[in-house]
Amino acid sequence: MRLRNKPWAKDFMGEHPDVLILEEEGKNINWKETFGNEQPIHVEVGTGKGQFVIGMALANPDINYIGVEHFDNVIVSALEKVIEADKPSNLRLIRGNGANLEQLFGAGELDRVYLNFSDPWPKTRHAKRRLTHESFLARYENVLKAKGEIHFKTDNRKLFEYSLVSMSTYGMQLLDVSLDLHAEMPEDNIMTEYEEKFSAKGQPIYRLEAVYNN
Amino acid sequence: MRLRNKPWAKDFMGEHPDVLILEEEGKNINWKETFGNEQPIHVEVGTGKGQFVIGMALANPDINYIGVEHFDNVIVSALEKVIEADKPSNLRLIRGNGANLEQLFGAGELDRVYLNFSDPWPKTRHAKRRLTHESFLARYENVLKAKGEIHFKTDNRKLFEYSLVSMSTYGMQLLDVSLDLHAEMPEDNIMTEYEEKFSAKGQPIYRLEAVYNN
Ligand SMILES: C[S@@+](CC[C@H](N)C(=O)[O-])C[C@H]1O[C@@H](n2cnc3c(N)ncnc32)[C@H](O)[C@@H]1O
Ligand SMILES: C[S@@+](CC[C@H](N)C(=O)[O-])C[C@H]1O[C@@H](n2cnc3c(N)ncnc32)[C@H](O)[C@@H]1O
Repeated sequence: MRLRNKPWAKDFMGEHPDVLILEEEGKNINWKETFGNEQPIHVEVGTGKGQFVIGMALANPDINYIGVEHFDNVIVSALEKVIEADKPSNLRLIRGNGANLEQLFGAGELDRVYLNFSDPWPKTRHAKRRLTHESFLARYENVLKAKGEIHFKTDNRKLFEYSLVSMSTYGMQLLDVSLDLHAEMPEDNIMTEYEEKFSAKGQPIYRLEAVYNN
Repeated sequence: MRLRNKPWAKDFMGEHPDVLILEEEGKNINWKETFGNEQPIHVEVGTGKGQFVIGMALANPDINYIGVEHFDNVIVSALEKVIEADKPSNLRLIRGNGANLEQLFGAGELDRVYLNFSDPWPKTRHAKRRLTHESFLARYENVLKAKGEIHFKTDNRKLFEYSLVSMSTYGMQLLDVSLDLHAEMPEDNIMTEYEEKFSAKGQPIYRLEAVYNN
């Protein structure tokens, strides 16, 4: 991720409140009103530059999408792309931390959480920061409806191994697992920026769908 | 697997009843008496030529091992190796079908089941023959003690993907998963014949440990 400072980022973000919501402002949002409908809501945590969540929103107009990303300098790239795509009405971005999802969404408000190429945090002492750590799984569970799903893609073997065990230990069930997604590319697969980069290098892409057992 | 006929196999097998038990004779066996102790019993289903189960028996004298293999022409190779290894007292072979485990063992009699490089049966209509199909998981559960474990290694991606979902759907929990076992080879890993062959070709070896949630 580009981390160089973009001094214009804050101003630019402020000019598009119809698309980009700041976490601190998102806490009192009524999402059904915001989207103007009762469609299911799918959230991607760690959206990066937005290619996946925008592609999904365009491909699936009957689902509402929200991309959450905590770095200004990254989410402005997503915002640029959303503007280029003419601001699909079923898409919003939140500049915020996935750790605070419960402040942004009510219990059972979401249908699905997407995690794509989440930061691996390889050191054991950083395990709590992994987006598939049990503390995050608990947060997602609180904002997902019963039997809500997590869909997760990554190139990182260690993170994927960890996540299989973490989700299983949490009591979630695996619905689908691919250990080389691009070997039999699903027709409806929307690539993320990282997915394009790592699959071009010939690395296998891992993917799972898991469901809460609640 | 060599499937050419070995006309001497039957005679040879009959000469070593202290090591090799035929399924039809195994039904009334008291395993504690047979082994002469109360050590935990670990069974490998689909033992092939026996390299793994013999290596495990030699490395872990405080555990009793039983290798189950249904082809005469294959199990005689295992028998030859067991004789070369001086018939370790904590090791037996059964010429029989893993589908009949419940006739060989009482409820809760086993501590662990090993599956190594099980036949993949790639066609969907053959899924029931896979040793990680739910019907097999139910059989293992019946002969394993509570919280019994399955340890599974394979090079076959599709079978491993299937098995993760099958075990998870059955309600088992994953304790450990490796998607490239030889990248950080565990010190106590005992290679099977197939493992040597496929890892030499550079294929990743997948491994999991799963526990029944009972
Ligand atoms: C490795 S990038 C992957 C980006 C994109 N999902 C892709 O697949 O191309 C991970 C992104 O997640 C963001 N991120 C990591 N932890 C986060 C958190 N707790 N809340 C929000 N965003 C997070 C990072 O800032 C980064 O942009
Ligand atoms: C692909 S070989 C692997 C052998 C060995 N485990 C290894 O890793 O080298 C699979 C073996 O499992 C045996 N097998 C398959 N299904 C079985 C069953 N239901 N009961 C007993 N043996 C079985 C086959 O005969 C074959 O010898």
